[in-house]
Amino acid sequence: MRAVDIIIKKRDRKELTAAEIRFFIEGFTHGMVTDYQASAWAMAVLLNGMTDQETTALTLAMAESGETLDLSGVVGLALDKHSTGGVGDKTTLVVEPVVASCGLRVGKMSGHSLGYSGGTLDKMESIPGFRTNLTTEEFLEQLKETGLVLTGQTGDLAPADGKLYALRDVTGTIDSRALIASSIMSKKLAAGAQRIVLDVKVGTGAFMKTQADARALARLMVKIARLAGRKAVALISDMNQPLGHAVGNALEVKEAIETLHGGGPADFRRHAIEIASQMLVLGEAEKTLAAARKRAAAALQDGRAFERFRALVIAQGGDVSYVDGPDRLPTAQYIEEFSAPRSSYLKRVDARQVGEASVALGAGRAAKGDPIDHAVGIVVHHKVGDRVEKGAPLFAVHANDRAKQEAARLQVLAAHQWSAKKIKPLPLFYGTVK
Amino acid sequence: MRAVDIIIKKRDRKELTAAEIRFFIEGFTHGMVTDYQASAWAMAVLLNGMTDQETTALTLAMAESGETLDLSGVVGLALDKHSTGGVGDKTTLVVEPVVASCGLRVGKMSGHSLGYSGGTLDKMESIPGFRTNLTTEEFLEQLKETGLVLTGQTGDLAPADGKLYALRDVTGTIDSRALIASSIMSKKLAAGAQRIVLDVKVGTGAFMKTQADARALARLMVKIARLAGRKAVALISDMNQPLGHAVGNALEVKEAIETLHGGGPADFRRHAIEIASQMLVLGEAEKTLAAARKRAAAALQDGRAFERFRALVIAQGGDVSYVDGPDRLPTAQYIEEFSAPRSSYLKRVDARQVGEASVALGAGRAAKGDPIDHAVGIVVHHKVGDRVEKGAPLFAVHANDRAKQEAARLQVLAAHQWSAKKIKPLPLFYGTVK
Repeated sequence: MRAVDIIIKKRDRKELTAAEIRFFIEGFTHGMVTDYQASAWAMAVLLNGMTDQETTALTLAMAESGETLDLSGVVGLALDKHSTGGVGDKTTLVVEPVVASCGLRVGKMSGHSLGYSGGTLDKMESIPGFRTNLTTEEFLEQLKETGLVLTGQTGDLAPADGKLYALRDVTGTIDSRALIASSIMSKKLAAGAQRIVLDVKVGTGAFMKTQADARALARLMVKIARLAGRKAVALISDMNQPLGHAVGNALEVKEAIETLHGGGPADFRRHAIEIASQMLVLGEAEKTLAAARKRAAAALQDGRAFERFRALVIAQGGDVSYVDGPDRLPTAQYIEEFSAPRSSYLKRVDARQVGEASVALGAGRAAKGDPIDHAVGIVVHHKVGDRVEKGAPLFAVHANDRAKQEAARLQVLAAHQWSAKKIKPLPLFYGTVK
Repeated sequence: MRAVDIIIKKRDRKELTAAEIRFFIEGFTHGMVTDYQASAWAMAVLLNGMTDQETTALTLAMAESGETLDLSGVVGLALDKHSTGGVGDKTTLVVEPVVASCGLRVGKMSGHSLGYSGGTLDKMESIPGFRTNLTTEEFLEQLKETGLVLTGQTGDLAPADGKLYALRDVTGTIDSRALIASSIMSKKLAAGAQRIVLDVKVGTGAFMKTQADARALARLMVKIARLAGRKAVALISDMNQPLGHAVGNALEVKEAIETLHGGGPADFRRHAIEIASQMLVLGEAEKTLAAARKRAAAALQDGRAFERFRALVIAQGGDVSYVDGPDRLPTAQYIEEFSAPRSSYLKRVDARQVGEASVALGAGRAAKGDPIDHAVGIVVHHKVGDRVEKGAPLFAVHANDRAKQEAARLQVLAAHQWSAKKIKPLPLFYGTVK
């Protein structure tokens, strides 16, 4: 077998065998298949596509390119969730404690932010002391003892995926459904997940811009899970406007804590309850979604979910006084409220523009490894469909730099679009794929 | 400008500007655009194609990526020829002396063999002492003094092409018409050619397998020449059977010398006269092809072409006694004639199989840098359409190894296919593109 022949086969629109894909990915992992061969192949895959069988073979080959976690000694049914990323998406911070409070162990590996999407790890690192670099041993130990973990990737999971992703990023080969799906799923499989809830975002603030694209990606990931002997459910959820009100690391942690106390924005609370309920059913803690929703809502109301969040922070070395008194979390120097310029209905609160404004304030990264300002961000007060009166508070900008604050004000203002006529609220979900 | 955006633009089937192509090729030449970016781009070009304007811009960018030769001080109208490569193609050895004997200076840079096509330089290196590594200064000096040169590439011509070709070879991106045409033409432009005769081979022993492909490549190269302010004529010529009889380095030199003496195989003589005539007209030594053919044929008959070949060999340090007494050229240890297994008409003498048999004997290279055996090769005695009687000589195998000789015998025998019915000879040419 030669790498060049595998490239030519894909170039000529033929279906690769699992053995060919494994040969190519193993070779790539160990340097026998070169970067320039992998990028030519990735371009051929992007332009000619792959069958579901090929994509599953690629997912498994990448999952098996390094260590794989076996959680069977710690949990009955290894449960995981994944969001394709959005603006104001602090869902994991609420969902994981809710699910754990219902008796299911959840060990989750998350990422840092890149581009206009936030990263769960950056949010949690707003809490002083909170460690996101657990070892595999610490991960397993905490999952067993505390029942929930939220950390960065432990060990050397799916190294082929990391290597291929870095290459795709600079060779114009990101936008391939097969490569996106296999990248996401390979990390989940390597981390030992048996049951996976996928939150596939669609809209201006998401990677997928159309419902058709989001649905196709969701279907492909659910199919990969099935072909790989796992089980996944995907929710297609809206990302045209930010989720909840807060965008920015400490601001989102505060909003998550409010939600864990039974409050928080209605849309975010509903979103979190829905994701948690799918996990409870998939993890076999509840038989029906209706029962699961009730139980998840109760866990938020009665403080059990909050208690699990505290346990999580303590287990990973975070200073829990910041959880008990969220006002202690990093606060920006300049906090300014801006009011509505007219009396009208909100037609649009563009998630992407709000996300970019937040990144420009310092809440995100333009490039990998850039430092992050946990304090800064945006709080939008209204949702699409809301009637807002002139002069009423519209959004706040939390900044540590006056010039950046002004730039953010203009961008977030532009993100708000108005209508004289009544506007229907955006749905939270567009459907479920299982 | 960023390399990744140029890749994405081509990936998305948009036309690149000349400035974008120049940026990409200059960056690639100097290492700012990486190999993995160039290979992803090449795959996008292969799958999505390029316009003639893009291909011309690529040709010029590669031609200008290193030194360029200016021959205007030495020749009035710099003339060149290029063959896309075939089996038994010793045309340059005859054409160049013919054209030079008619008063046109011709400086030609040629290549070594790779795969089943022979290389003009390997053939000339059968003559002891003949140097094919002239410096640019030597090239110019000899062109001025002797009027003809036949060497490898001098100096650093079109380095981007060399670098890109090496990458294409291992990333499945050879088979792109735009990339093939720009690779050929960039070297011709860098070498200063103003008028170019292209010999585009089609058939089993050629890179182009169909007349449609050959014609499309010919049209593209002629168009590039025009858009780049040069002038080219392309002949589409047959390569389903070997050209002439001899395949193998010294064997082909002997056949070329016979032809330069007014003899040689009829098909090869006619082919060489046709190419030479196109050059004489393009180089403005003759007004019509008819007059040019007459003059070329006369130069072969009256010894003036042979005299020029002698001068070429002497100028480049070759031992001219081998030209005067070709029997002194390297001779194989085992020379065996094989006779026709039946009385029948020849339907096929597969050029590719004969070429591969010759390479397997040691006449060619499986990989760049492999050593070459100048003595070995095949001599086929008949052409498609010939009536051959059982027991008559069919072909000879010149070998330095008995086992290899037997393998070659079987392969060359299989290359001959028979018909009970009369068969029409193959045409030498399928058309002209100008």
